[in-house]
Amino acid sequence: MTTHPPSAPPTLEDVARVAGVSRATVSRVVNSVRNVDPKLRETVERAIAATGYVPNRAARSLVTRRTGGVALVVSEPERHIEAFGGVFGDPFFGRVVEGVIAHLRPQGLHPLLMLVDSDEEREKLVPKLRQEQVSGVLLISLHPAADPLPRMLTDAGVPTALFARPGRPAPVSYVDVAHQDGARLAADRLVARGCHRVATIAGAAGTPAGQDRLAGFRDAMARHGHAYVAVAEGDFTEHGGERAMERLLAEEPALDGLFVANDLMAYGALTVLREAGRRVPDDVAVIGFDDSRVALSCRPRLTTVRQPVEEMGAAMARMVLERMADPQRRAESVIFDPELVIRDSA
Amino acid sequence: MTTHPPSAPPTLEDVARVAGVSRATVSRVVNSVRNVDPKLRETVERAIAATGYVPNRAARSLVTRRTGGVALVVSEPERHIEAFGGVFGDPFFGRVVEGVIAHLRPQGLHPLLMLVDSDEEREKLVPKLRQEQVSGVLLISLHPAADPLPRMLTDAGVPTALFARPGRPAPVSYVDVAHQDGARLAADRLVARGCHRVATIAGAAGTPAGQDRLAGFRDAMARHGHAYVAVAEGDFTEHGGERAMERLLAEEPALDGLFVANDLMAYGALTVLREAGRRVPDDVAVIGFDDSRVALSCRPRLTTVRQPVEEMGAAMARMVLERMADPQRRAESVIFDPELVIRDSA
Repeated sequence: MTTHPPSAPPTLEDVARVAGVSRATVSRVVNSVRNVDPKLRETVERAIAATGYVPNRAARSLVTRRTGGVALVVSEPERHIEAFGGVFGDPFFGRVVEGVIAHLRPQGLHPLLMLVDSDEEREKLVPKLRQEQVSGVLLISLHPAADPLPRMLTDAGVPTALFARPGRPAPVSYVDVAHQDGARLAADRLVARGCHRVATIAGAAGTPAGQDRLAGFRDAMARHGHAYVAVAEGDFTEHGGERAMERLLAEEPALDGLFVANDLMAYGALTVLREAGRRVPDDVAVIGFDDSRVALSCRPRLTTVRQPVEEMGAAMARMVLERMADPQRRAESVIFDPELVIRDSA
Repeated sequence: MTTHPPSAPPTLEDVARVAGVSRATVSRVVNSVRNVDPKLRETVERAIAATGYVPNRAARSLVTRRTGGVALVVSEPERHIEAFGGVFGDPFFGRVVEGVIAHLRPQGLHPLLMLVDSDEEREKLVPKLRQEQVSGVLLISLHPAADPLPRMLTDAGVPTALFARPGRPAPVSYVDVAHQDGARLAADRLVARGCHRVATIAGAAGTPAGQDRLAGFRDAMARHGHAYVAVAEGDFTEHGGERAMERLLAEEPALDGLFVANDLMAYGALTVLREAGRRVPDDVAVIGFDDSRVALSCRPRLTTVRQPVEEMGAAMARMVLERMADPQRRAESVIFDPELVIRDSA
């Protein structure tokens, strides 16, 4: 399309030469300065088209002090070597990315992908963001209860939005799902099916999601008159779900209803139930949480509480852009309603 | 750590004021120009430390014409609204990202994540890369047979590395696994187990991976004296694996060995075999390809051909950085050896 050699993209000087004007004039047109003669402007714009010149964001930012770069930052307590792609191999992460990109792309924005996995790196993040010209952060924290990043970012005045409520109070925007409402949907369904001996596999106790889903489920069961619900804690992994299911079967062999705090653990629980000869849903009704891809891989297909992760990712991106446009804006929270997706397991 | 208000990061001017030198002197120190008086340099460096000034990559690049930005570009034929995160929700993508980040991060680099899903966007990619100051591309193409991007990027002189061989010839670097060797490992294993009626579920016919795994498997079986292998084509999805398995059972009810071109289809095939009352591996031995997370979710756990995706992602990143440092470097290919991971299904 353009006529310059590929290794040298056209420069402001090339445009100036083709237009027969000064470099300063081209610069004023590119940076939308007002007092440029309309004819000159037209000449320059024609030269820009002819050369294929692309105004450089970096050059623009030196003039306007605005950048608009956004980073998607994943914060982990410490890095493990993970055979299966670690957090990036978790489909949940992919759903967030999907939503983020769906919102950013129409604005011509592309997120910088950053991973921080040590306190040393967390300390260096704010300077690094400045160096990379990032002026807004979408943060996914994998250890919300102990993560200092939300506070560090807000202290540094970096517009930030979190996926899920911060574990420590910080004046930071976030999206989340109404976990307790979701757990209640599961409890109501199990009770409506006539389940009498109900148990739950809870998520990691150190996470707001783990705590809220457990509290919401217990509370809803209590309102239905069930004073006691057997609980085994998993860690949101398939393996954790298997181990928790074994413990529950030992404690409550006659259980007939089960709420599991995410689909991946439910998948593991179903494997153990199958191996123990329990039919799902006839002997035990099982409900998960997330409505992730794995819910469709379950046999029977998993009834689960849907968390609209893609929409949440998109909302998080919108919040950061609004904050970047208006830094005085207050921290905002958007809580999404969960929904029960009924399939075959309950 | 720094003493300026958070909304205004320290500028070159701040450093100049603190150091008591001109802006030009600070600039020369920051940009490592040689002829700066050592004492002046020291003064400026102390002022940089005192102010917390971070040299701005954009400012640097205006001077040095070097940028170093890398983009991870995902090219799709056209965008579908995907409930489960689309390509980003595919754990395979996550494994590539994991490897890419493992290599880039120690260099202080963070990839820009870009999705292009129409020919119009593909046309705009090169100018957009220049605008974003991206000088190297890591490309994952989901429709390699028809994707014009590898050729467009090399024509534009953009250092590029592909994940997997380009579907159309182009002088572009890539990483790949030796698909045919992998398929042979599966064939040898099935024959060694004494399988006599062997079938295969092939991947999408339009992809090099689909073609190579099928050709390699047929060829290896022929060398073992098996002139005919029943084939059903899947599309690399779980659902495609289920449908293909149903067709194979109809065509060859007595099959006792199965090679499936990826783990996700093998997962679907196992579901159908279980529902048809076939025991794995006693009645039918099953081998997958990838060694993805899903291999561990299979029951029985899946014997599969390991593709070292994380290492391949890291190698792809290394290749692009080397190309960026030396644009005259020739296109390079690095082909990884597959490995048979023996679990319970064969």
